[in-house]
Amino acid sequence: MPTSKGKTLIEVTVVGPDRKGVVADITNFIFKSGGNIEKINQNVLRGLFGMQFEATFAEEISRKEIDFGLKQLAKKLSMEIKVHYQEPNRLQNVAIFVSKEPNCLVRLLQAKKSGRIRANIPVIIGSDATLKSIADDAGIPFYAVVHREQLKAENKILQLIEQYNIDLIVLARYMRILTPNFVWRYPNRIINIHPSLLPAFPGAYAYVQAYERGAKIIGCTAHFVTEDLDQGPIIYQESFKVSTSDTLDTIKKKGQELEAATLLDGVRLYLENKIEVYWGKVYVKEDR
Amino acid sequence: MPTSKGKTLIEVTVVGPDRKGVVADITNFIFKSGGNIEKINQNVLRGLFGMQFEATFAEEISRKEIDFGLKQLAKKLSMEIKVHYQEPNRLQNVAIFVSKEPNCLVRLLQAKKSGRIRANIPVIIGSDATLKSIADDAGIPFYAVVHREQLKAENKILQLIEQYNIDLIVLARYMRILTPNFVWRYPNRIINIHPSLLPAFPGAYAYVQAYERGAKIIGCTAHFVTEDLDQGPIIYQESFKVSTSDTLDTIKKKGQELEAATLLDGVRLYLENKIEVYWGKVYVKEDR
Amino acid sequence: MPTSKGKTLIEVTVVGPDRKGVVADITNFIFKSGGNIEKINQNVLRGLFGMQFEATFAEEISRKEIDFGLKQLAKKLSMEIKVHYQEPNRLQNVAIFVSKEPNCLVRLLQAKKSGRIRANIPVIIGSDATLKSIADDAGIPFYAVVHREQLKAENKILQLIEQYNIDLIVLARYMRILTPNFVWRYPNRIINIHPSLLPAFPGAYAYVQAYERGAKIIGCTAHFVTEDLDQGPIIYQESFKVSTSDTLDTIKKKGQELEAATLLDGVRLYLENKIEVYWGKVYVKEDR
Amino acid sequence: MPTSKGKTLIEVTVVGPDRKGVVADITNFIFKSGGNIEKINQNVLRGLFGMQFEATFAEEISRKEIDFGLKQLAKKLSMEIKVHYQEPNRLQNVAIFVSKEPNCLVRLLQAKKSGRIRANIPVIIGSDATLKSIADDAGIPFYAVVHREQLKAENKILQLIEQYNIDLIVLARYMRILTPNFVWRYPNRIINIHPSLLPAFPGAYAYVQAYERGAKIIGCTAHFVTEDLDQGPIIYQESFKVSTSDTLDTIKKKGQELEAATLLDGVRLYLENKIEVYWGKVYVKEDR
Repeated sequence: MPTSKGKTLIEVTVVGPDRKGVVADITNFIFKSGGNIEKINQNVLRGLFGMQFEATFAEEISRKEIDFGLKQLAKKLSMEIKVHYQEPNRLQNVAIFVSKEPNCLVRLLQAKKSGRIRANIPVIIGSDATLKSIADDAGIPFYAVVHREQLKAENKILQLIEQYNIDLIVLARYMRILTPNFVWRYPNRIINIHPSLLPAFPGAYAYVQAYERGAKIIGCTAHFVTEDLDQGPIIYQESFKVSTSDTLDTIKKKGQELEAATLLDGVRLYLENKIEVYWGKVYVKEDR
Repeated sequence: MPTSKGKTLIEVTVVGPDRKGVVADITNFIFKSGGNIEKINQNVLRGLFGMQFEATFAEEISRKEIDFGLKQLAKKLSMEIKVHYQEPNRLQNVAIFVSKEPNCLVRLLQAKKSGRIRANIPVIIGSDATLKSIADDAGIPFYAVVHREQLKAENKILQLIEQYNIDLIVLARYMRILTPNFVWRYPNRIINIHPSLLPAFPGAYAYVQAYERGAKIIGCTAHFVTEDLDQGPIIYQESFKVSTSDTLDTIKKKGQELEAATLLDGVRLYLENKIEVYWGKVYVKEDR
Repeated sequence: MPTSKGKTLIEVTVVGPDRKGVVADITNFIFKSGGNIEKINQNVLRGLFGMQFEATFAEEISRKEIDFGLKQLAKKLSMEIKVHYQEPNRLQNVAIFVSKEPNCLVRLLQAKKSGRIRANIPVIIGSDATLKSIADDAGIPFYAVVHREQLKAENKILQLIEQYNIDLIVLARYMRILTPNFVWRYPNRIINIHPSLLPAFPGAYAYVQAYERGAKIIGCTAHFVTEDLDQGPIIYQESFKVSTSDTLDTIKKKGQELEAATLLDGVRLYLENKIEVYWGKVYVKEDR
Repeated sequence: MPTSKGKTLIEVTVVGPDRKGVVADITNFIFKSGGNIEKINQNVLRGLFGMQFEATFAEEISRKEIDFGLKQLAKKLSMEIKVHYQEPNRLQNVAIFVSKEPNCLVRLLQAKKSGRIRANIPVIIGSDATLKSIADDAGIPFYAVVHREQLKAENKILQLIEQYNIDLIVLARYMRILTPNFVWRYPNRIINIHPSLLPAFPGAYAYVQAYERGAKIIGCTAHFVTEDLDQGPIIYQESFKVSTSDTLDTIKKKGQELEAATLLDGVRLYLENKIEVYWGKVYVKEDR
């Protein structure tokens, strides 16, 4: 993500039904526009093609030209193409996704209020309406997107993300799994909190699993979301020791508090530009 | 492992080529001798049968009778049968197994010397002779069992274990994998140290894997050894946070020191009778 | 499952909240009643205890006495205990479980009608009502057990299984996962059909996975159901080669026909007493 | 791999210690030379960078210029860069790698002799000298590369591959695992035979595992080799049914014969240009 001085960096995502020639057409366009491709990544899952790349331009580029060119390419290739221009000094727009558990959401809103994190939070999206009142109290628009069909739900959400011009999505115990069609549009821009020290205990019921396995150290992980569930780059982890008197209930309770703190720390590292992702691994630039 | 007052508890292991009728013959003998079977576990892998059970006897039993009866059964069934009589007050005999890394061995010997752990250490067994001088300095017999064929090596080791009347085996970075034929003879009597927070990063190269995966918390695990590699009951875990300045080398160095401390703590919990294993999970009776 | 001549074999299942002393009390009772325990297996998952064992009695036993004794033990231990007396010559009662796909059900009913399999089919249970008309046409009672909560659904089903005195449960593309609480009551008495050559492609979407992976041979597996999803003992497998012209749709179509044939073959082997299960592996006594 | 008429297709591999700027420099060079990048793939493992791409050129290109340009880039970037020019009509040079089992090697040599496969086999490489006499009889140079250290062994082999100008490597029961440093240089140019229906039973001891698991259909798989052991694109599979009278020995014997036939079929499909690899999946263009 970082750029050398004087250069402009853009991040581009391309998503659509797989077809030949996409890589050639798009990389060609970037080169003819004077860009260098720094990183490039592609994937195909169940017929869906996804490409993400970063390109640098030596001089000031014409956004208009790039936008227009990519729009035409998108049309020609029947792909959805998005450009993200790096503007490190602009306040980021953060969308928070939630389900029923309030801890993480409450902690993030407090941190915003107290100034511990600096960002706009223009929208909160729920998989149901449970936490609407918290959003209301904070004066932030809340949308419950409850479609059972994941595709419909995600289309509605994509529209909201667009509408609120979102830079970062925070999954604050959002209990639905996002599809590649969604995830590939926001590479290293979706942060999730998982209630275990990943890669241990992925999937649902992490505390139950850790408890039944007899783990003596239990923790949680803030990580970027990729198409591989619970396997994206690890941003931040915290842990506690299980004591003799702990039960599954006390572990869950301690865990939920730790989740909120860990997610907040992960989001803060991101917003403070202290994170670099390289080959699927997060490098923290400076200790907290 | 613990018994109610006034009862005698024995642990029996049966290992040999799989054949029918073994369960019936042995459980029958225990019942006719007045015993109750409290736990029983059997397994077959690649034609090898293994059974472990615990039995309690309401009154003082005749060891001679039990020993004689099981010896006869062993002959009849072509199985190797071992009885272990629980004697909580006897000083335990501990064998330490090592390869090339000295940290864990040195720490255990220091702890024995300083009285932090109370046990006999009558023998040290190496997969090569690298650490012989440490054993020599401590005045403990050292055997390098270097056979390339695991079967031959284990037979030699089993003989030593017998000779020194060993109660507990401590794998202090012993880099060979023990077969079911060995492990089934010492259920919950072999403690290993693994350089990760299991179940994360099992197998070799745990630090490399954790480093490449970008784990932010790294640790190690003292655990009982079962036939499933790195999956036995977890006794004790310790961890540290990875900092921005850490490299693979500094992580390994921190890790190796932590291994020695964690293994020592696990062994101590065992020797102080603070551990109960129940359905593959360790319950620590009292915090340290 | 097989007995030597003149002996009586019983299969006993014990299920309930985990507590100490169960193994001792029950094995003790069997021994005092003159039985030998041939195989015994126990497990604990999420606090639920399950034990299955087979016992032989040298002479004719009094069913009344065994039943009464176990009933009293069940009460004392707060466990549910079921005995199954082996009666190889009695026509078995088979319950078929279905969801929406008709192929397997239709094939089983045809085979029953034509005499290819010999059994009673006194009840069909659906996760919804989709296939009710097929049951109606065959004159077999159909129950749609649609509870969302798996526990409620299973309790209702357990009651039906009891009421119809079922010996064998056939999952004919039943799309719900049975819990240990259910499965442990019917060891080696639940046959499932899975649309892959297990252990390849477990879980949902097996054809999609096989197709995307580029498998050149695709098949299906009739297997006994255990608490480990899609990992129970394999009874029978069939396969076909993927040809150049195959699409995901043609593969699914071929697969669904093969499922019906394979499940039928697996059920037939069971009903004809040609199967022995030993340490989690099915031995077929005689080729078909 | 296939090209549209009139176009020239090149395949390029880049391997070396990971450093920034490689992607930009190399893709830039291709574009400036008039090429289009059709597919591109990169990976980093343990600090090693690997990139493979295919580029098409609308007109006849100057090999000299491309070769010279890439050589200079290789120097500048401290990377090893190889170009492979597609020449579908040239007879391919095939190297066969072996260990101790002769079946696959013998079958391939017979097929070459009888004309069933059309290729040069200029060299056979063994992990030891066991099969040297077979190579001698066929008049083909045999090299035993026995270095214990995999890095040394692979460097020696890479040199032989270069010397004999090899297009395709066939692992005919070669029992050593190739590192990414080797594999990344020959994308979709190394064919292995694995003794199971992958993805079932990867790793060593596939027959033992299948037998112990009670698989009723057993087979083998010819597949391309990638850095993920036994997970590369599947080219061809064959299978047989396990019968009641089969033992582990008869299964191994049947399996070994099937391995030779399956590997031959896979190699033949490759040499006859009937294979296209797309997103890690092999498409066979025409049934055999």
